[in-house]
Amino acid sequence: MNDRRLATVPTAGSHHVVVIGGGFAGLATVLGLKGAAVRITMIDQRNHHLFQPLLYQVATASLATSDIAWPIRWLLRHRPDVTTLLGTVTGVSPSDRRVRLDDGQTIDFDSLIVATGARHAYFGHDEWEPFAPGLKTLEDATTIRRRILVAFEQAEREVDVRRRAALMTFVVIGGGPTGVELAGTIAELAHHTLKGEFRRIDPKATRVVLVEAGPRILPGFLPDLSAYAQRALERLGVEVALGAPVTACTAEGATFAGDLLPAATIIWAAGVQASPAAEWLAAPSDRAGRVLVEPDLTVPGHPDIFVIGDAAAVKAPDGSPVPGIAPAAKQEGRHVAASIRARLAGDTAARPFRYRYAGSLATIGKREAIVDFGWLKLRGRFAWWLWGIAHVYFLIGARNRLMVSLNWLWIYLRDQRSARLITQGLPGERRADTEAVPPIRVS
Amino acid sequence: MNDRRLATVPTAGSHHVVVIGGGFAGLATVLGLKGAAVRITMIDQRNHHLFQPLLYQVATASLATSDIAWPIRWLLRHRPDVTTLLGTVTGVSPSDRRVRLDDGQTIDFDSLIVATGARHAYFGHDEWEPFAPGLKTLEDATTIRRRILVAFEQAEREVDVRRRAALMTFVVIGGGPTGVELAGTIAELAHHTLKGEFRRIDPKATRVVLVEAGPRILPGFLPDLSAYAQRALERLGVEVALGAPVTACTAEGATFAGDLLPAATIIWAAGVQASPAAEWLAAPSDRAGRVLVEPDLTVPGHPDIFVIGDAAAVKAPDGSPVPGIAPAAKQEGRHVAASIRARLAGDTAARPFRYRYAGSLATIGKREAIVDFGWLKLRGRFAWWLWGIAHVYFLIGARNRLMVSLNWLWIYLRDQRSARLITQGLPGERRADTEAVPPIRVS
Repeated sequence: MNDRRLATVPTAGSHHVVVIGGGFAGLATVLGLKGAAVRITMIDQRNHHLFQPLLYQVATASLATSDIAWPIRWLLRHRPDVTTLLGTVTGVSPSDRRVRLDDGQTIDFDSLIVATGARHAYFGHDEWEPFAPGLKTLEDATTIRRRILVAFEQAEREVDVRRRAALMTFVVIGGGPTGVELAGTIAELAHHTLKGEFRRIDPKATRVVLVEAGPRILPGFLPDLSAYAQRALERLGVEVALGAPVTACTAEGATFAGDLLPAATIIWAAGVQASPAAEWLAAPSDRAGRVLVEPDLTVPGHPDIFVIGDAAAVKAPDGSPVPGIAPAAKQEGRHVAASIRARLAGDTAARPFRYRYAGSLATIGKREAIVDFGWLKLRGRFAWWLWGIAHVYFLIGARNRLMVSLNWLWIYLRDQRSARLITQGLPGERRADTEAVPPIRVS
Repeated sequence: MNDRRLATVPTAGSHHVVVIGGGFAGLATVLGLKGAAVRITMIDQRNHHLFQPLLYQVATASLATSDIAWPIRWLLRHRPDVTTLLGTVTGVSPSDRRVRLDDGQTIDFDSLIVATGARHAYFGHDEWEPFAPGLKTLEDATTIRRRILVAFEQAEREVDVRRRAALMTFVVIGGGPTGVELAGTIAELAHHTLKGEFRRIDPKATRVVLVEAGPRILPGFLPDLSAYAQRALERLGVEVALGAPVTACTAEGATFAGDLLPAATIIWAAGVQASPAAEWLAAPSDRAGRVLVEPDLTVPGHPDIFVIGDAAAVKAPDGSPVPGIAPAAKQEGRHVAASIRARLAGDTAARPFRYRYAGSLATIGKREAIVDFGWLKLRGRFAWWLWGIAHVYFLIGARNRLMVSLNWLWIYLRDQRSARLITQGLPGERRADTEAVPPIRVS
């Protein structure tokens, strides 16, 4: 008997489902289990679900953090069968069917869903991270926002021409959708939003360089859409460097194609590494740390443990990898919910997951996008509207849909970005927000 | 000749006005100098002007940071005579007419306006600060917001009854407008917004205690309005402790009236300390560090240096102190602008500042307020509407007026607070936002 075992609130269901992670995959599982004869515990180390596809807009001062994040327990407030806990999982004992939290508490489960996502990865060069932050969390986004805005402020005070040029050079590493969206929006921020606000520098002289190791940007799209996106980026003033793997990120700048480009701001949008789920479960994983799950999304040898979302390496029916995007994560979550329901109904046959291609969208600045639904390919202004409507539709709640729409309207019509706030980390500032929380512990 | 002296952009005016601080006072000075034959440098250590009267709503998850803050250089974008600099002033040489920045750069001035505001102060007990954060900056607000929300999260996981009670006890120290507004809103957050979202704790059991050393809350108002406000707070479930000076703030809780009240969350709204302007200027100051200015708001012996806003101790015509509120700061800023204009026109006579009483407003939760315009005293629901309309009116820009109104509508109708985000400082979390910015310096 473990004294530190957390009792769960008894409800109708005796089968206890523990979900780790309140992202798209974990949340879809819980929503899919509505009305099932189970009790559910949702654990996340953050109190909010995050709409990651728009995170780059927080990083570029277009949206506020609260526009794209919702408290998980608010989302699940009408579900008395769900207990939401803020906590960090440190391990899983598959044989004991038990989850361990960082303070030593444990939680027993009957079914476990691991949906812990991924962080950015530096291909073995973790020393690059301080100079090239990635974008996965709200804190990442406000960090990048602060760095972008501080660079312009420092440039305004800089008297050395060479240093000023470095402060006004922004390197985005990685030509996937996040890198493209960041580069395009930084260029718009510099060339339009900041116009006329500086007296010593001209923000129009800002250089934004998108660096991609492969032969084209947006490799998930067809080549002609990739080429179109590149031209659209270049029209916005972004320089695109292809076939240019990065070999160093330092305080001086980024080195690629053999040369150092002096730059004060580097943003990493190149690689991800799955959370330590595979280690917890001693499960086979791929190079990026994703658990190699069975066709039914369970862990080999543990039919009651599912790994889904970016923490899992899932194959589509044709053998191709399922992409790490929100629609795929949601489909996986719903599939797991259906599997648990079937098992509780006595049907224990493994149900292979079938990924349904949901289309790809990427946006370039505030007027261009490319869309590929398979049966429909679009580019340009109309594709941007489709992109915008789709993203507003997938936000949660009327309030956030309205707020995001209004913010976009202001940006579209007036180039005003409302969230141009530098918070934390100013030179010489008391860092109220980084102080330690007083030692009040759950114990 | 100092190599590190920052040249200013030459404009029509040769008289150089340097304004330190982009709060209500400093900004009003710059706006009042529109069209004058001067060039202006505005220096602030933050990039944003903050609408402090609504800061408590960020701390209580009602508004987003970007709803009440604007980039200073955006506000001044149509003023080519103004150069805005992000920087921290470390000293002033009145004899050289020179301002020193933290990196060694210096800026010469002809007229200097010091509007550097105040921080919260602990009456000689700075050791209380980690346990009882105050509310002056956006970072302060997100720190308090995080602590309030984390306390409920920890309570949900707490198994010890005594510890759980402490996690669900919130002590607000100081019965001025900020303390009253914080206490009322925390009570509403606990009793309404969080209703139904927890499975182990009942947020209705939350205790909110407002502690005031004096005999009544809101001492700036008439006694009957104070009494009304106290009853309104108590109807919201706030306990009001009067005549109870705090003698200790620790990780265990707050000690007042001789007893320790175990509480995980303490918020300081009791005292302020002016910024080090008096030290810079070697000027006489009061106990709170405010510069004792001449009737024309200049520093004794330095007719070209003005100190205004919360950094100054100003007397009203009747000898009473001018309160540290936004309308007073704006009046002082406009007065300084008029004085500089008069001097440039050859009128060097000292112009004494005359404070015009602008009324006092305080709100208690989302339905009650008290208003005292002198000629008009109001309380209750109608006063709340007046308070709300006045505050929306004083926000800058149509976008923010619309956003704040919409957020309030959601809170009013549905008790939903949109900004319930815990960011930074979670247990076990990588603190992306607290890492050091790479060593890129203006030098």
